Amino acid sequence: MIRLYDYLESGNAYKVRLLLHLLEIPFERVELDILKRETRTPEFLAKNPNGRIPAVELEDGRVLFESNAILSYFAEDTPYAGADRWQRALILQWMFFEQYSHEPNIATLRFWHFAKLLADKSPQEIAAKRTWGEAALAVMEQHLARAPWFVGERFTIADIALFAYTHVAGEGGFELARYPAVQRWIARVEAQPCFVPITHDFGVPASPVP
Amino acid sequence: MIRLYDYLESGNAYKVRLLLHLLEIPFERVELDILKRETRTPEFLAKNPNGRIPAVELEDGRVLFESNAILSYFAEDTPYAGADRWQRALILQWMFFEQYSHEPNIATLRFWHFAKLLADKSPQEIAAKRTWGEAALAVMEQHLARAPWFVGERFTIADIALFAYTHVAGEGGFELARYPAVQRWIARVEAQPCFVPITHDFGVPASPVP
Repeated sequence: MIRLYDYLESGNAYKVRLLLHLLEIPFERVELDILKRETRTPEFLAKNPNGRIPAVELEDGRVLFESNAILSYFAEDTPYAGADRWQRALILQWMFFEQYSHEPNIATLRFWHFAKLLADKSPQEIAAKRTWGEAALAVMEQHLARAPWFVGERFTIADIALFAYTHVAGEGGFELARYPAVQRWIARVEAQPCFVPITHDFGVPASPVP
Repeated sequence: MIRLYDYLESGNAYKVRLLLHLLEIPFERVELDILKRETRTPEFLAKNPNGRIPAVELEDGRVLFESNAILSYFAEDTPYAGADRWQRALILQWMFFEQYSHEPNIATLRFWHFAKLLADKSPQEIAAKRTWGEAALAVMEQHLARAPWFVGERFTIADIALFAYTHVAGEGGFELARYPAVQRWIARVEAQPCFVPITHDFGVPASPVP
């Protein structure tokens, strides 16, 4: 069985859980507490030298890391991938936007709240994350005011990648009420068949535990 | 003709210039000075709402942004792409590693040197970029001590993506002499047929100017 190295609070790991659920691919979870540095042990670094979750281990032992690469791998030749070369490129465009312009600001502020790290940060650092996070949400709002999904006429892994930390942006102090098109898109994602919420809102594991 | 919105000092833009040269795809360049905020004009924001170079405009007016998405688009079905589903996933893994763990540290320190912004930054900020940049180089060193290329037995867009800022990491104060396998890999990349150096070492435009 596929093994997911996971952390339930992580939006990056949630992306993979959500896609595997949508595709009805069974998997087992190995929960690693990033706050306890369980992703920096020699055993885990032998699997992912970059020391981060999520990582996926296939049944033959091959390991893939980076959430959006994992999404691309499992989505290939499914309706969650792009239908042609241009759509594949646009999906990657939005996934790289997510990892470069969105996640380092929106997910990081949420993590600083969650891990009680805000007091260690300078007001300038917090303000910069806030400014760039708002800029990313504004780019999303502009796109979603004109289109129901990020690429083409359907829900793809570009939407999964961007949904993961957007729908919990309020936990980092962002006001999603300022982004009505984003809010309508969040409702469309949550209405997908087989949708599962991020697990920290759930209370019970979203998936089989090994 | 394809139009590249470009900035000659940018490693992200250089990735695209290098691949287009390797593929012998003609293109014209529109140089935008990021220091003068030429990527934040209403005209350019209408092309890339995220306000960054590189962006590519096709002959029919469609625009693609994010350097690694552009690499993936042009490399599809060429020897610079992965040969199968697993290789495609590994290429994306390393390209997302580049944008998340490598570029924000190594490219940013180089930019702070280049744009004379170091004095505005706190010692903690500079030290954090240095620490995480060294960590990314160490991950690369570990991989390249065992394999000639990032994915499979040949030079792919994963190598192009990682080469762009690695080979000029010294300009941000990193000592590449500490990473001998990385240095040997840099020499292998530079030995590729049709290789062109990053243009700021060049003195003249690497490509036709419109």
